[in-house]
This record gives sequence, structure tokens and C-alpha cells, in this order.
Amino acid sequence: MDINRYLKEKKEKVDSALERYFPKKEELTLNLYKAMQHSLFAGGKRIRPILSIASFEAAGGKGERILPFACALEMIHTYSLIHDDLPAIDNDDYRRGQPTCHKVFGEAVAILAGDGLLTEAFRLMTNKPGKDHSSSDEALVLGLINEVAQAAGVLGMVGGQVVDIESEGKAVDLPTVQYIHTHKTGAMILASVRVGAKLGGAKETLLKALTRYGESLGLAFQVADDILNVEGKAALMGKKIGSDQVKGKATYPSVLGVEESKMRSKELVEMAVDALKPFGPEADPLREIARFIIAREY
Amino acid sequence: MDINRYLKEKKEKVDSALERYFPKKEELTLNLYKAMQHSLFAGGKRIRPILSIASFEAAGGKGERILPFACALEMIHTYSLIHDDLPAIDNDDYRRGQPTCHKVFGEAVAILAGDGLLTEAFRLMTNKPGKDHSSSDEALVLGLINEVAQAAGVLGMVGGQVVDIESEGKAVDLPTVQYIHTHKTGAMILASVRVGAKLGGAKETLLKALTRYGESLGLAFQVADDILNVEGKAALMGKKIGSDQVKGKATYPSVLGVEESKMRSKELVEMAVDALKPFGPEADPLREIARFIIAREY
Repeated sequence: MDINRYLKEKKEKVDSALERYFPKKEELTLNLYKAMQHSLFAGGKRIRPILSIASFEAAGGKGERILPFACALEMIHTYSLIHDDLPAIDNDDYRRGQPTCHKVFGEAVAILAGDGLLTEAFRLMTNKPGKDHSSSDEALVLGLINEVAQAAGVLGMVGGQVVDIESEGKAVDLPTVQYIHTHKTGAMILASVRVGAKLGGAKETLLKALTRYGESLGLAFQVADDILNVEGKAALMGKKIGSDQVKGKATYPSVLGVEESKMRSKELVEMAVDALKPFGPEADPLREIARFIIAREY
Repeated sequence: MDINRYLKEKKEKVDSALERYFPKKEELTLNLYKAMQHSLFAGGKRIRPILSIASFEAAGGKGERILPFACALEMIHTYSLIHDDLPAIDNDDYRRGQPTCHKVFGEAVAILAGDGLLTEAFRLMTNKPGKDHSSSDEALVLGLINEVAQAAGVLGMVGGQVVDIESEGKAVDLPTVQYIHTHKTGAMILASVRVGAKLGGAKETLLKALTRYGESLGLAFQVADDILNVEGKAALMGKKIGSDQVKGKATYPSVLGVEESKMRSKELVEMAVDALKPFGPEADPLREIARFIIAREY
């Protein structure tokens, strides 16, 4: 399969769904609308929603019931980027080649645009589904939202972010970096895979396999990100390279060095692909996404 | 009925439920735990959760099924206070007589503690209920969460907050102040009443009555807050008096003057009480809470 074509097709599907689900211009005060839009449609790779769709389809899911969840995952990811970029946190001026939300709209609106996207994500997941709502799936949906909230919150992404901040400029050990990565990035990647799997109808064995896949992939993804921050091309990344080192961030390269980190990320991708053994070609997109994670240049 | 005693009893119930639902100390990094705790247990009046309980019971609800929702409403309220107090927004150093979250824990942790509380609220509402889960209420619960998300988000509280910030220092008209108040404060008050009503089993007529009550009360509450900011006693309020005027905030007193604002808030409370006509004594707590809103000194 052609992974680049697959990613492009799915990204277009997610982008158009996000536009459909996004609040209407006339419903919001203009700056809030523009600020949310600025960050949500800034050319993100849509990895989390695509993972949820790929996992949904690997598990046998059909139709578009996954789309509100896929888009909610991206809204939560985008809110976390807006807040991370704030002067009080990472103080980043550029992301994906664009000035960050607070640089354009000011800190107050950026904070609130982030709050708004996070809250919209939960509204979207609880909206009554349309034609793709074939059966009564409310109990399942509540469980999915619970899993997303846990992954996004203080036991997941927010918790990892606080440890990340607290570790800046300190000599940290591998378990700490691992804690930061599995919480800050890994939890939402894993949730994306599991939400797709559960909604697609994966039962015990397949859900376990996809969970193992998501765990390895989540960590691989962040290790690859760390490496790109050292070795990536600024033009492709749309942001400064080497910023982790300047800030004294706890990363895999800072603890293990670049070469050892590359080996680890390859191992993790192999583990992720290996976890998909119970699946046939229906999981090829998941396999290719895993390989893409370490091959990508942005 | 003795409203002060009622409020005290319900506040204790909410406080103990919040403690039960709050993440365990060992689950979180210490500063995040302390920051969330600092703001969540800072002596709030618990008006929103108490309203949801009073509305639940007026509608015939029994037991504790309302408690996770009551506590989620308070977590969302608390997150909004933490973010509002930030230097980039209202820049407040004190609230309820305590230094604000960012004054104690720094801006980064305060932003993330707010994010964490908001996300925990949605986790709490989607947790599997315990012994009070008498029947399969998942479809109802999804609808309640949707309503809370709408009230808290860009179409409600967050939207009102952005207009509030954008109106600072400008000459605004009454419709703008009304927009700010009904969105920033009113939407979550109304949602508190409606969540209680729906979960308590209120059908069309009673739900309509409680909706009218919640709408009037929400506006009355914020107008009373505006008046307290002019006339209140700093010692009772635990924060500076007159700060709205210093910041050039769009308030009822700034547009209508204090006396006219007092008349409006009384009228709104009368409208709220009037809306409860279909109810007997089971709605007395709601009636008394409405009267308390304008009689309170803090």
C-alpha cells in the first residue's frame, strides 16, 4: 500500500469533518473563532485522528461513526499545543511554520481558545450521531469518552506536561523521561488507537493487540519527535530545531544520545508492528503508520 | 425552611463528594495535586452543585446519582476561576481570601491545573456510577454532558469570557453586558439547574419551568455579583472591592448605575421564583436560593 496516499486521503477526510463540526462563524465572537481556526487548521498531520480511523477499520468498523471521535482527538491535541506554546509554558513563537496562537491573538484569547477546543471536543463526542448511528451505542460511547478524558487529563497528558516542565534544566533519568513521554504523548496516541478499536468492535484479543500496538507506537512517536528536534530540518518542521536542548528538556537524546535513541525508536516500531500479528492486511495502514513515524522528516 | 442550614448541609455533602472523586495524591505529581486542591477546596459557596441537587430533588430525584454531575459542575467552575485569574486575563492576586493559584504555583502549573480540572469533570461524568445507578441511563447522561459542554464552551462560558475581555475599557451597551452575563455566568447556572432537573426526571412542563428559573437566576446572580464588587465588604468577599471599575469591566452598575441594577436583580429573582409556580414545597430550596442570591454579602 502507498502510505503517503493513504495519509493524504485520510487527512482530507478529517479536515473536511473538522470543518463540518467546527462552530459557525456567526455563533462566536470573531477573535475566538479566528484563534481556534488558526490553530486547528494550521496544517497538522492529523496523526491521532488517522490512527483512530485506521484502528477502527482494522477492527472491522464501517462508515463514519468514528469521525466525531477522530475530530475530538485532534481538537484536544490542538488545545494542548496552544497551551504548551504559551509564554508561561514553552514560550514558542512558531509552530508548523505559523506564528503560534498567542503571538497572533494575545495570551488571553489563546488560553480561552484552548479551553474552548478542549470543551468542544467533549461536546462533539456527546452529540447525537446522524445516519451512522446504526444501533444504540450510548454505553460504549460513555466508556470511550471516559478513556479519552483519562488520557487527556491529570492521569495522562496534563500530568506528563507538568512533570516535563518540572524536569526542565534538571539532570533526569530514563524512567522520568519515559514517564513524561508515555503520559504527555503516549496516552493520547494509545487512546486514539483504543477508541477506534472499541468503536470498530474489537473484542478481547484484538483489543489487547491494538493496545500493545498503541503503547509502543506512542513512545516511538515521541522518541522520533525528540530526534527530529535535534536533527530535523527547520524548513520542513516549521519551527526551530534544537529548542529542546536550549530549554534543557528531558528527552531521549539528552539521556541516551541520538544513536541509541534511534535504535530504541526502531525497536519500538518493530514491537508495534509485531503486536499486530493477529491481523491480516486490514491492519496494513497501522503497520505503515508505525514505519512512517520513524521515517518522517517533519 | 432555614436556607443557611440547607446551604451548609448541601455544601458539606458536595465537599465530601469532591474529596472522594478527587484524584489520589500518589497518582499525581505533587505540585499539580496541590494546585488543583488549592483552588477546588478554597471555601467556595458551591452554588452550582447545590443548585443541581436542589433542582434534582425538586424534580423528584432521590439518592446520590446527581453527585458526580454536581461535582463536575464545581470543577468546571473552579477551572474557569483559575484561568480567569491569570495575569494574561484578569490578573487577580486574591480570591476567597487566598492567593490565587498562579500566585502560589506559578502560571504554568496554574494553566495546567485548570486544564486538568476541566478534563477531570468530563471523566467524572462518564465514570460508571455505583449503587445509585438504578437503571440504564446512558442516553440521558450523554445528553447531560452535551448540555454541560455547550454551557461551558465557546457557545457559553468561554464565549462570554472572550467578549468580557474584549469589552474592557470600552463604553458598552446593555445588550453587550447582558450577552456577557448570560454566557459567562448564566449558561453554567442554567446548565446546573437543567442537569439536576433532567436527571431528577422532570418532564416537559417542569423542565420548562426550571429552565425559566435557571435563566432568570443566572442573570440575577451575575448582576448581584457586579453590585457586590461595588458595595461589598472586602473582608467578607476575600478579594478587592471596586476591581471591576478599575479594569473598566462591562457590568450592570457601569451601564445602569447601582440602584437601577439592584432593582433589576430583584425583578430577576422574582421572575425566578415565579417560574416555580408548578411546584409545591419541594422547590422551596430553589426559591430560597434565589432570594439568597441578592441578600448575600459575599
